[in-house]
Amino acid sequence: MAQKNCTREEDYSRWYNELVPRADLAENSGVRGCMVIKPYGYAIWEKIQAQLDKMFKETGHQNAYFPLFVPKSLFEAEEKNAEGFAKECAVVTHYRLKTDPNNPSKLIVDPEAKLEEELIVRPTSEAIIWNTYKGWIQSYRDLPILINQWANVVRWEMRTRLFLRTAEFLWQEGHTAHATKEEAIAETEQMLEVYAEFAEKFMAMPVIKGRKTESERFAGADDTYCIEAMMQDGKALQAGTSHFLGQNFAKAFDVKFADNEGKLEHVWATSWGVSTRLMGALIMTHSDDEGLVLPPALAPIQVVMVPIHKTEEDLANISAKAAELKAKLAKLGISFKYDDDDNKRPGWKFAEYETKGVPVRLAMGPRDLENGKIEIARRDTKEKTVVDFEGLETYIHNLLEDIQTNLYNRAAKFRTENFHKVDTYEEFKTQLKEKGGFYLVHWDGTSETEEKIKQETQATIRCIPLDAEDEEGVCMVTGKPSKRRVVIAKAY
Amino acid sequence: MAQKNCTREEDYSRWYNELVPRADLAENSGVRGCMVIKPYGYAIWEKIQAQLDKMFKETGHQNAYFPLFVPKSLFEAEEKNAEGFAKECAVVTHYRLKTDPNNPSKLIVDPEAKLEEELIVRPTSEAIIWNTYKGWIQSYRDLPILINQWANVVRWEMRTRLFLRTAEFLWQEGHTAHATKEEAIAETEQMLEVYAEFAEKFMAMPVIKGRKTESERFAGADDTYCIEAMMQDGKALQAGTSHFLGQNFAKAFDVKFADNEGKLEHVWATSWGVSTRLMGALIMTHSDDEGLVLPPALAPIQVVMVPIHKTEEDLANISAKAAELKAKLAKLGISFKYDDDDNKRPGWKFAEYETKGVPVRLAMGPRDLENGKIEIARRDTKEKTVVDFEGLETYIHNLLEDIQTNLYNRAAKFRTENFHKVDTYEEFKTQLKEKGGFYLVHWDGTSETEEKIKQETQATIRCIPLDAEDEEGVCMVTGKPSKRRVVIAKAY
Repeated sequence: MAQKNCTREEDYSRWYNELVPRADLAENSGVRGCMVIKPYGYAIWEKIQAQLDKMFKETGHQNAYFPLFVPKSLFEAEEKNAEGFAKECAVVTHYRLKTDPNNPSKLIVDPEAKLEEELIVRPTSEAIIWNTYKGWIQSYRDLPILINQWANVVRWEMRTRLFLRTAEFLWQEGHTAHATKEEAIAETEQMLEVYAEFAEKFMAMPVIKGRKTESERFAGADDTYCIEAMMQDGKALQAGTSHFLGQNFAKAFDVKFADNEGKLEHVWATSWGVSTRLMGALIMTHSDDEGLVLPPALAPIQVVMVPIHKTEEDLANISAKAAELKAKLAKLGISFKYDDDDNKRPGWKFAEYETKGVPVRLAMGPRDLENGKIEIARRDTKEKTVVDFEGLETYIHNLLEDIQTNLYNRAAKFRTENFHKVDTYEEFKTQLKEKGGFYLVHWDGTSETEEKIKQETQATIRCIPLDAEDEEGVCMVTGKPSKRRVVIAKAY
Repeated sequence: MAQKNCTREEDYSRWYNELVPRADLAENSGVRGCMVIKPYGYAIWEKIQAQLDKMFKETGHQNAYFPLFVPKSLFEAEEKNAEGFAKECAVVTHYRLKTDPNNPSKLIVDPEAKLEEELIVRPTSEAIIWNTYKGWIQSYRDLPILINQWANVVRWEMRTRLFLRTAEFLWQEGHTAHATKEEAIAETEQMLEVYAEFAEKFMAMPVIKGRKTESERFAGADDTYCIEAMMQDGKALQAGTSHFLGQNFAKAFDVKFADNEGKLEHVWATSWGVSTRLMGALIMTHSDDEGLVLPPALAPIQVVMVPIHKTEEDLANISAKAAELKAKLAKLGISFKYDDDDNKRPGWKFAEYETKGVPVRLAMGPRDLENGKIEIARRDTKEKTVVDFEGLETYIHNLLEDIQTNLYNRAAKFRTENFHKVDTYEEFKTQLKEKGGFYLVHWDGTSETEEKIKQETQATIRCIPLDAEDEEGVCMVTGKPSKRRVVIAKAY
């Protein structure tokens, strides 16, 4: 490495911006605000997708696909939703290009191919989906509808960052329809639990489950639940949201069902989503100055083995061991890569897999071979040890579990250390400035106070935690009464 | 079924158009030319995706993701490609809506949010991808690049039909970069083989592998390989294409690599794709007047069981048997659904699963239970038989294989019966009109003759088959010499 990498300490933001392309995850494209997700990054996303998809199906959901475009008249039907997204949407106005009469090698938009009605590239799909559900729902027998969609969406963000905020991103969006309010709320809460379980168990990322304040709700929702995670700079990242949409979309699209007494009622709705933003959360939760650190549960390559040899004979013997190990690990469902590329030195490979966050690295030389040993290095703690080759697969299996647990515990410890309870606004401002992190504070419940805090400190109320205990207190800003604490932090 | 379904005999086209929504596969949406893929249809697409993805990975490809939008300047860089797609592309010109000053509940395009450069919604991704590859390729060590993308694309087709031709569709597009022409051609041919294997083995759909004539090539390709299948009305459906792109895109985007002597050369390219159009091919190859017929390899539900009972006790006993069977089938990787919905009669369920093309249907009543028997009906031949419950899982396993083979053989037989060799243009025109089907004819190799045939008969040269034998002959239209026969047919 000729050039030293920027460290988290030096500049956390630059560290992230440099790490994402360096670890071969993604890069900016020739299209403003849109990213290219490179094969290694996409392989992690595929693992995220596969696991979430399994969890969605286990909770009774099916996948489907709805159009990319939303006609303007449908887009504007649910007013709050439309208002929330109108300022950042890509609009298709024409359906043809033609040769530029002034320059035959160039194309121009054909003015004669103007659409009668403009099409919005979906920033979210409630409008197009509820317009479709209208045709699917007549009676209570048609309910619930439990559908998820894996798709790309576009939100014309002005300032973009790889994975964290891009004009186009990949996501899943669940859209469900129910006969009762209670059932819709239960679904909203269930999907929040699914997200939390995924974040903690697979991403090794502790999250706070909570509800958004009114001003932070999804446009068109009656209630927005979220999971919030703490990044290594102490800032919050909203990692998933689950919305109780009430009857807002059913009313906007006139979707009614006959209950079992034949009475017509509007349908109750939810929607919930996570996106490629999770990639950003994953990277920022665990990685270090040397590169990416991946939890084994989501690592495309869990174990890499590098041969260290002088002779062809040594290489052949080490390769035989690698093949043996690969077969044993495959039986345990562990992904293994043997890197015998002769164009690269072992040191180069070590650095490469460190940058890419491969959880376990093995190195074997002629002496190891002779002694029946192998060197094993874990990415999370960078500890190296020499172990017996015999029984190695079991050792690795346990080590991977240990790494997964250690990453979670390390992140949880960091969060605990950076989670503060404060009671005065002065204290809050000073501490936030000095050390960042999350703050549990009393708030009077008004949007005015919320906005004042945001204006003065750039911190926002991340959520009202679901597990918040009742605690009489007074708002740190206005002194008005408060019944429980909220979580407040600067956020991505 | 109160209303009789349209039969293939009566009107093949209407039969298809009615079957797709009736079998719950897809429907037209509120957006012109765009479809909604319903859960049952999407479940089949997921099976197609999973199998193809596996085959792509086995042949060394990785997935990645590139932007939805192509800036106009990149879009027009490869001239032939641009020309080929310019007439049917959705163009994003603005990035914001605003409240209509004349009607505050409506939105209008904000004229102040006009993009400096228009964005084309990708009709295919060569342009954006080669603009990206430019940054990835310096030397021969960076080659080959073997990447696939699963994505949505938009082509503004004027006349659309569910799955067969829609403005937006889902597909995969492979884009590879190579150091030599030979390697790129080998890749093009390899992927054609993958498609053919998938079509025949999983879709149970025989295909002809061939090359397109110059005028039918992909815009920007030096050579287009294809697989062509025969539908039940004797028309051809192009089910997949693999393109040898030569150095066209490398030249348009200035992508060069240093070979092992340091000499700079343009990179060689391929691209290949199949889309949700395969769903149309699958439906039209096997289905009958009663509904969908699915090959077991792609059926979301392979076996359905319906209880026939009068008492709760009977139901409990039958349900116990179903649970036992489910566990046994799961071990064999066979998907099973037990439909004990009490709101629907067995007859209704039978019709439903027939419409949905479930390969094997089981029915069990109290007498079957007593005798240790079960009724088993296969969807392809509609044969029913009563078999022992003991060992049923093996019977079903074999039956599913038998159905898969039978569907392929049936389609192959149909194709043989409708595949004709003719030598005169008169003969061709008469036979095509009378009985449709595929024709092996001699053609002089000119675009003029090809165009004349198309104009006069609506038939097109589907391909020059890869396995065509050398055979001296004369063009059926012009009498000029020809060295081998081509396949010609009306097509979707």
